[in-house]
Amino acid sequence: MIETVTSRHNPLLVHVRKLFSSRAYRQAKGEFAADGVKLLREAICWKFPITAVILTDGVELPDLADDVRVVRVPSDVMQSVSPMEAPQGALFTCRIPEQEPLRITRGTLILDELQDPGNLGTILRTADAMQVPVVLSEGCADLWNQKTVRATMGALFRTRTVRASREEIICEARSAGIPLIAAALTPRAEDIRSAPLDGAVIIGNEGRGICETFLRAADREIIIPMNERCESLNAAVAASIILWELRRDRPE
Amino acid sequence: MIETVTSRHNPLLVHVRKLFSSRAYRQAKGEFAADGVKLLREAICWKFPITAVILTDGVELPDLADDVRVVRVPSDVMQSVSPMEAPQGALFTCRIPEQEPLRITRGTLILDELQDPGNLGTILRTADAMQVPVVLSEGCADLWNQKTVRATMGALFRTRTVRASREEIICEARSAGIPLIAAALTPRAEDIRSAPLDGAVIIGNEGRGICETFLRAADREIIIPMNERCESLNAAVAASIILWELRRDRPE
Repeated sequence: MIETVTSRHNPLLVHVRKLFSSRAYRQAKGEFAADGVKLLREAICWKFPITAVILTDGVELPDLADDVRVVRVPSDVMQSVSPMEAPQGALFTCRIPEQEPLRITRGTLILDELQDPGNLGTILRTADAMQVPVVLSEGCADLWNQKTVRATMGALFRTRTVRASREEIICEARSAGIPLIAAALTPRAEDIRSAPLDGAVIIGNEGRGICETFLRAADREIIIPMNERCESLNAAVAASIILWELRRDRPE
Repeated sequence: MIETVTSRHNPLLVHVRKLFSSRAYRQAKGEFAADGVKLLREAICWKFPITAVILTDGVELPDLADDVRVVRVPSDVMQSVSPMEAPQGALFTCRIPEQEPLRITRGTLILDELQDPGNLGTILRTADAMQVPVVLSEGCADLWNQKTVRATMGALFRTRTVRASREEIICEARSAGIPLIAAALTPRAEDIRSAPLDGAVIIGNEGRGICETFLRAADREIIIPMNERCESLNAAVAASIILWELRRDRPE
């Protein structure tokens, strides 16, 4: 049964607004919200646990499981809930899936304190394209921030990204016998073209780079060679090149 | 001499606001505006033609040429001009430099109808790091949009990016004997790992990819291999990987 909601103060809409705006609320409720017709299609395609769908009139009702709540709203009400300037007409909420156990393998990408949700989403999208598993240290942006979700273009619905503390990550890598390779701008860092990428690669924060803890724990350091007058690359760009190098020599 | 301005309606401030907001106005005036202490430092370092600098109290006056107008404003006035939510306290305007003649070489990157100024700026930053020249087709986002300028992180001040029509680009490549290589998702596209990148590489629009004109003119097509379930990469990410491949095998 499809409900019709016309009040902006409807409890579901209040709930969705809070899911969009507050990380603490998302965590407390174990739910997040996303916006977009194509994202919704991806979530359905990958059988992600959708809890509710909010549509404006004219947007076609997709094929949903029976337990998903469906609500129709006028477009001005949609506008009052959506974080987008021009909402596409489909919002949805999902249950945050339970985290899988931490695993570090050769060719895992570890992101440390990556701050920008858009960068995080773009990196997850690229990692999915390159079939590289990703692990986040605790300081990273929220996976379930709507900007992260949007930038993944659906990759979030078909991959599982684990979050762990730096200590857990280091401990897991050690016990699995996987070398840690830090992408760092230090003088002793090896050129990524000649360094063997036979471990898990760590990328640091946008501004400060790799933290002391990871730098000390790293078995090796690598660098992307660049024009000397450039200080650094955008974090998502550096990650893309590293993801590509992790993918590049892998057999099909 | 340093002027002090306290009125938000001061003609210079009105001018700067229009430079930030209107591409047509930037073109008519042959000037653009940028925001940021570090960007200003880069513009000075690379001797870019700065015309005026607007500073809030407390921000140190940098070493400027004699003909640069310098204005101090209170922080609420700065807030009324700056496009940033948290202005750093330094705005500046520059003359748009005259365009250099179009040149297409082996290893040039051609961007076709790239829409997003942030993507454009990030690509120019990466191209500078990889020492790859960039040419824009006419449909691309504005080089002098403040979002482009900011995303270049100063690369805009030390590189010259030429804009030309598709016809001019094709004609110039032909007469210089440079093959055109289209990054395309077509079945006949060659894997970028095995295809020789001995020409100029064209990257298309974020949504639609390469246009018909460039696709027909292209001597070869290349593709970045990826997981089949992924439709595409973010435009700046695809560009980064191609820029890296153009850089990768070049001798130091």
